[in-house]
Amino acid sequence: MVIEVVRIGQRLVRDDRVTTHVALVSRAFGAERIFMTEINPEIKDTLGKINDTWGGNFEIEFIDSWKPIVKKKKEEGFKIVHLSMYGEKINDAQEEIRKEENLLIVVGAEKVPREIYELADFNVGVGSQPHSEISALAILLDRIQGGQQFEKEFPNAKRKIIPTKTGKNVQVKETRD
Amino acid sequence: MVIEVVRIGQRLVRDDRVTTHVALVSRAFGAERIFMTEINPEIKDTLGKINDTWGGNFEIEFIDSWKPIVKKKKEEGFKIVHLSMYGEKINDAQEEIRKEENLLIVVGAEKVPREIYELADFNVGVGSQPHSEISALAILLDRIQGGQQFEKEFPNAKRKIIPTKTGKNVQVKETRD
Repeated sequence: MVIEVVRIGQRLVRDDRVTTHVALVSRAFGAERIFMTEINPEIKDTLGKINDTWGGNFEIEFIDSWKPIVKKKKEEGFKIVHLSMYGEKINDAQEEIRKEENLLIVVGAEKVPREIYELADFNVGVGSQPHSEISALAILLDRIQGGQQFEKEFPNAKRKIIPTKTGKNVQVKETRD
Repeated sequence: MVIEVVRIGQRLVRDDRVTTHVALVSRAFGAERIFMTEINPEIKDTLGKINDTWGGNFEIEFIDSWKPIVKKKKEEGFKIVHLSMYGEKINDAQEEIRKEENLLIVVGAEKVPREIYELADFNVGVGSQPHSEISALAILLDRIQGGQQFEKEFPNAKRKIIPTKTGKNVQVKETRD
């Protein structure tokens, strides 16, 4: 399954840390790429450093507007999953979504354009109570991958955590460059 | 199962929105209360308004420091679950945690005191990659409740979402006060 994420509707500065966390969740939970309209080089810098230290090739792509990418991905056969507290229950929708090959997940901020509800193949609610786009994305990615995203290796990591019941155990790969 | 959350180590202002999202996730995912050391009346105000509109009795309690509450809860028979990217894999730990009656979940920010690793009954990693305390908390709460937290009613709500595949469907309860 190929998973990509697009972040829409965020407000400059106010949503920067939340957008960074959305990008971090995308990466840590097995997505390959996030598209975002906010041209914030700091977010790209943060994620670049994290790839460098913790491995993998997660990508951030800045886009001018969300609609062309959603339409392009649909044409390429991606199914569009829009996270919304108004959507269908994830407990009901997850079985269908799991069967898909390629997903573009749309993560909105406070205000999203109405049109996305029509363009989406699935409007999914992670509960019907307000919480956070960060948690909604995490739950969706966990449910559709059945937790297996956490078993995946991130190649070329300089540091790797060995899970342990107490304290910290980090493998550090020495390089000579 | 009674679930409470304590937020530790956050930095003033910089972490405010993240702390708000941690509180929102706690509420939406079935915890009864969050303890926090940051005296930010805005967070309490936000959550109060959300209870008012969307129901339930979720509580925020401001505390002077985290250690007395962790020790008190331990004495009361709560098990302490500390979320840490260095911890034991959640895929392995979740079965044990599910059997517990009362849980206090410790959600750290960037820096946490070493002592918490010793005080905790479980140090749990939601993956071993950096992401967000918001997503880590959400996954833990979802896994230990098997998704059933989303079926729970929030009593005395003024507005209630009826999940739907397209658009928005909100039941509004009229009051005459």
